[in-house]
Amino acid sequence: MAVLLSTKAATMQAWKAALLAVDPSLDIRLHPDAGDPAEIEAAVCWTQHDMAELRRYPKLRLLVSMGAGVDHLLRPPGPPPGVPVARLKDARLTQGMTEWVLLNVLRFHRQDLEYRAQQAARLWEELPAPDTAKRRVGILGLGELGGAAADALRALGFPVMGWTRRPRRREGVECFHGAEGLSAMLARTDILVCLLPLTPETRGVINARSLALLPRGAFVINAARGGHVVAEDLLAALDSGHIAAAALDVFEPEPLPADHPFWGHPRVLVWPHAASITIPESAAPQVVENIHRAREGRPLINLVDFAAGY
Amino acid sequence: MAVLLSTKAATMQAWKAALLAVDPSLDIRLHPDAGDPAEIEAAVCWTQHDMAELRRYPKLRLLVSMGAGVDHLLRPPGPPPGVPVARLKDARLTQGMTEWVLLNVLRFHRQDLEYRAQQAARLWEELPAPDTAKRRVGILGLGELGGAAADALRALGFPVMGWTRRPRRREGVECFHGAEGLSAMLARTDILVCLLPLTPETRGVINARSLALLPRGAFVINAARGGHVVAEDLLAALDSGHIAAAALDVFEPEPLPADHPFWGHPRVLVWPHAASITIPESAAPQVVENIHRAREGRPLINLVDFAAGY
Repeated sequence: MAVLLSTKAATMQAWKAALLAVDPSLDIRLHPDAGDPAEIEAAVCWTQHDMAELRRYPKLRLLVSMGAGVDHLLRPPGPPPGVPVARLKDARLTQGMTEWVLLNVLRFHRQDLEYRAQQAARLWEELPAPDTAKRRVGILGLGELGGAAADALRALGFPVMGWTRRPRRREGVECFHGAEGLSAMLARTDILVCLLPLTPETRGVINARSLALLPRGAFVINAARGGHVVAEDLLAALDSGHIAAAALDVFEPEPLPADHPFWGHPRVLVWPHAASITIPESAAPQVVENIHRAREGRPLINLVDFAAGY
Repeated sequence: MAVLLSTKAATMQAWKAALLAVDPSLDIRLHPDAGDPAEIEAAVCWTQHDMAELRRYPKLRLLVSMGAGVDHLLRPPGPPPGVPVARLKDARLTQGMTEWVLLNVLRFHRQDLEYRAQQAARLWEELPAPDTAKRRVGILGLGELGGAAADALRALGFPVMGWTRRPRRREGVECFHGAEGLSAMLARTDILVCLLPLTPETRGVINARSLALLPRGAFVINAARGGHVVAEDLLAALDSGHIAAAALDVFEPEPLPADHPFWGHPRVLVWPHAASITIPESAAPQVVENIHRAREGRPLINLVDFAAGY
């Protein structure tokens, strides 16, 4: 029985080596050289893989998505019916995201954009000191990534709020849920951080209406999916000065087209979907664990909940 | 008995209000309107105050320096003989410094300068993921500020080393001391953070020799005093590529002259001595506490150790 591996050409060999380091007996086939389709029992795929193609493998009994988000799997045609799908819950992935969120929260909180502009003008001027205890951070999503970011921000002294679709509790985080809860949280949020899964309910959650609910001068940070943000609405809010600045790692489409206004906007920080990168050595053990579990008919870990959409 | 207050014009009234909020009975005189010199029992001064001027007050029994560093007091002529000197140890000051250090460590660690350059070129390209567990941070100084920065960096997963003049221990921090220890730590430091007091022994500690000991591509962060860095040596190391980038909050002299090469250097981030700003409301209680203690002849808190130089 064999494992089909399908990811970007640049990282294919690193993934193969990392999986073999955990279990040297694995028979790994690099897409599109799958060999006999009837031998493929598991597929380990990144977002670019065509779900229709997976229907070629009659004995497929596991699909592993090589990231935290699975929205790409849920678009038609979706994974082959009856094949369980797992995603990654990886400490390194979470750590990388926490660092990226902290970097951008601290950049905005500590007036770094203003100080960079002052440096360009050779201007020596101390700005009023910001008060961490009064800089309220609102996090959309309190899953693996949102929860870890919330804890790290709390540890630095920021008051942290979190919004989820369904009611949820987290130590030290003021929790909101549902449509009413979203409005209530936004009205008090100085720095908004989006770490939601992309589902039909969360698509476009950062739009003209929700941006208008934020206090004037608020900041927007998005490391979830481009589809969470209505780009024209965010640009309008930035240009009116209602939103002070934004840090964006994800876009729709990606790569961000070269003529998109985000690239040259003085109050937008563009990242190339690099806020957190899956590192093969770190993620390989849980992938191999699921391959073994699928082979032996044991319960899988990190399964995607298709009803919830993540 | 009265208190002489002497600081920048912009913050004089805020300090007066903060001190009166703690003890409304205080008789606060704003420099240079001290009134009868014989009535001044305590002086609360920022760095610009002339120490010779303090010799006008025959009954002075307490000098409070409005910051963490006291190097300005130790230059000739120094404070009036026999007058005890206290400095600030303030949680808000420490918190602000920790934020600033984290912001700049994360900026360098997460390749932010490269990603900003890529944005300017509208280039969508993921760089190799950095490994936090292998990014060794070396901190010069493990006092109030260095110790807090070390703890915050450890919590994020960075391996942290610390150097002090005399032997010192701190949980989870690999500690070095003395001249040999300094060389040993520098040889393994990817990001160097200076939070030392400025004393004759630490002046110029970041120089051509110590920079050469750092691995190629290391980063330098200085939030202590401008006198810790030999500016020409750092510029040479940046221009040769041996040092990848620097974040500097402090300079000699300040303000940094408009024609200084740091301002326009693409790999130098200049801050106007704003890494951490003393907030009057936060610092006032310990100042008033020392005024009361001095008046009642009780032991003072946060006294400067003149033998150690901080």
